[in-house]
Amino acid sequence: MITLAVDCMGGDHGPDVTLAACRQFLNHHPEARLLLVGRPERLQGFAHERAEVVPASEVVGMDEPVEAALRRKKDSSMRVAILQVKEGRAQAAVSAGNTGALMAIARYLLKTLDGIDRPAIATQIPNMRGGATTVLDLGANVDCTAEHLLQFAIMGSALVSVLNDDPQPRVGLLNVGEEAIKGSEEIKRAGELLRAAAARGDICFHGNVEGNDIFKGAADIVVCDGFVGNVALKTIEGLASMIGGFLKEEFSRNLLTRAAAVVSYPVLAALKRRMDHRRYNGAALLGLRGLVFKSHGSADALAFEQALNRAYDAARNNLLERVRTRVAHAAVLPAAPDMASVPGATPPSPH
Amino acid sequence: MITLAVDCMGGDHGPDVTLAACRQFLNHHPEARLLLVGRPERLQGFAHERAEVVPASEVVGMDEPVEAALRRKKDSSMRVAILQVKEGRAQAAVSAGNTGALMAIARYLLKTLDGIDRPAIATQIPNMRGGATTVLDLGANVDCTAEHLLQFAIMGSALVSVLNDDPQPRVGLLNVGEEAIKGSEEIKRAGELLRAAAARGDICFHGNVEGNDIFKGAADIVVCDGFVGNVALKTIEGLASMIGGFLKEEFSRNLLTRAAAVVSYPVLAALKRRMDHRRYNGAALLGLRGLVFKSHGSADALAFEQALNRAYDAARNNLLERVRTRVAHAAVLPAAPDMASVPGATPPSPH
Repeated sequence: MITLAVDCMGGDHGPDVTLAACRQFLNHHPEARLLLVGRPERLQGFAHERAEVVPASEVVGMDEPVEAALRRKKDSSMRVAILQVKEGRAQAAVSAGNTGALMAIARYLLKTLDGIDRPAIATQIPNMRGGATTVLDLGANVDCTAEHLLQFAIMGSALVSVLNDDPQPRVGLLNVGEEAIKGSEEIKRAGELLRAAAARGDICFHGNVEGNDIFKGAADIVVCDGFVGNVALKTIEGLASMIGGFLKEEFSRNLLTRAAAVVSYPVLAALKRRMDHRRYNGAALLGLRGLVFKSHGSADALAFEQALNRAYDAARNNLLERVRTRVAHAAVLPAAPDMASVPGATPPSPH
Repeated sequence: MITLAVDCMGGDHGPDVTLAACRQFLNHHPEARLLLVGRPERLQGFAHERAEVVPASEVVGMDEPVEAALRRKKDSSMRVAILQVKEGRAQAAVSAGNTGALMAIARYLLKTLDGIDRPAIATQIPNMRGGATTVLDLGANVDCTAEHLLQFAIMGSALVSVLNDDPQPRVGLLNVGEEAIKGSEEIKRAGELLRAAAARGDICFHGNVEGNDIFKGAADIVVCDGFVGNVALKTIEGLASMIGGFLKEEFSRNLLTRAAAVVSYPVLAALKRRMDHRRYNGAALLGLRGLVFKSHGSADALAFEQALNRAYDAARNNLLERVRTRVAHAAVLPAAPDMASVPGATPPSPH
């Protein structure tokens, strides 16, 4: 039996979406239990033999500063959900709340794994091969050293080996060219560390990849610093939204184009399905002593359920132990200077 | 009369494409002259009263290392084209060749303007407002200081004031959040410099922008370091190509969907037109003592003609003087440490 702790108050829509998703999830997973965390008066209507309400009196706002969420809201639904993981009552926590606050609270309560300087956020982006490319970091760390990028590669490999059931997924280093001589000094050094780790058998290193390779699926995992990852992710969201808008505009221009839209409905529906980011909802916070998954704030019930699925699969396949083992196996990981106390290192929202 | 020097040998297709574009360009611009640079035997067939062949015996390969192109090919078509600008025989040079080599040779021959530490590459990306957002740098500089980003903002403002006929275009700083406290230390410092420059009236600063804002057209100009800009540009190319591929696949799936494609032809053609990157071909190399424009290597004749148009407009509107004046007006530009000699600072290709 796997138990997930769900921050039912987070996200743009709160319990309206999260509870609907929880019900679907329980129907689909007879072996799962849920701890529904939030204001009891909002959650008590939900009756299910495998669900239990865990009260939390406060809610972290979507735009609330990280410091305020961390220091002043000691009874927030986000914090109480993570506490369930820390205290062993749940195997993973899921929240659609403020990313920065979630990362800060998770890090504060759970701490990082031995050998990991900084947790990272990993998400999946659909690619041309019909699968998805896992990209990390997506904004938790805006200044990364080569050692951090190596740690991301190792954690990402553990995650993808669980998600894709592939023991040795290929890691690509995001760069401005495929040749090893490209990029900044730090990126070139990261390339050296990744090659050395591959030689030791800790990861499978594909080499440098460029922005377009995310969609080609040239590598299963793409590692980059959180600034670059965040810009890439938001650029993708922006372009997809613009193209969607253009399609809608052009198909509704006049009677003729509206007729074309009707005729093309199956095609447009198929396209929408293939591009549907809801299928890939649920970013993993990696490198902590406990599993935490982040749903997109604007998730609907289908998307939020997907984040629950992801957390469930991760817990069932013991992702935490896999990450721990991989990190330990990568034995003498070079130490990275801890920049957690650098003022700019607070995790920005990737969404 | 404006004279452009055209590297006719550059790009994936060489003279087949460049000469076709040159002929169209001359037909459309009765006030323009062209210097066709390249191997005479390939260019002599082109007869036009406003065109003249300038012989160059060598060609820089698309994948040729920058050092080799710079040091060993002293008579390359790229170099001879830029030489025409340096020696005053042309007001701008256009090439579809290797970006890294073009930037290195242009920088070596033309030198940078006073007050500019590093030239940058600026291109336009179509946005939802029906216009385009100018983004720089796109890969010439992989490690940028706050001072470099300020210089990009000033040069970008000069470029866009010419392109859009708008005296004070809005500059956005690419970041991981809109709040001024977001981002790395260097980015925060860049924000301070940009705010100070705006207070002095040197630029119009919109504030931080995120990846998706490139498409919203929140700012006319988006400044970022070359690593981030290159990743963003290639991510855009990759996603656009994937969506295009998906559309094609779904519309050719069976007889019914093929019929839908026929009915939808006007819609798909309109969409293609709106997304057509050829319309925005022609990136500006800014910060040099001469105008150089870079066409995409895979450009067809229509796209290459667009790059010629851009160079022509820039020359006609005296972009060089405008950049020089703006940089001089931004008087006491803080000095940036010159990293030109850092091994990693060779310009990678943005395409």
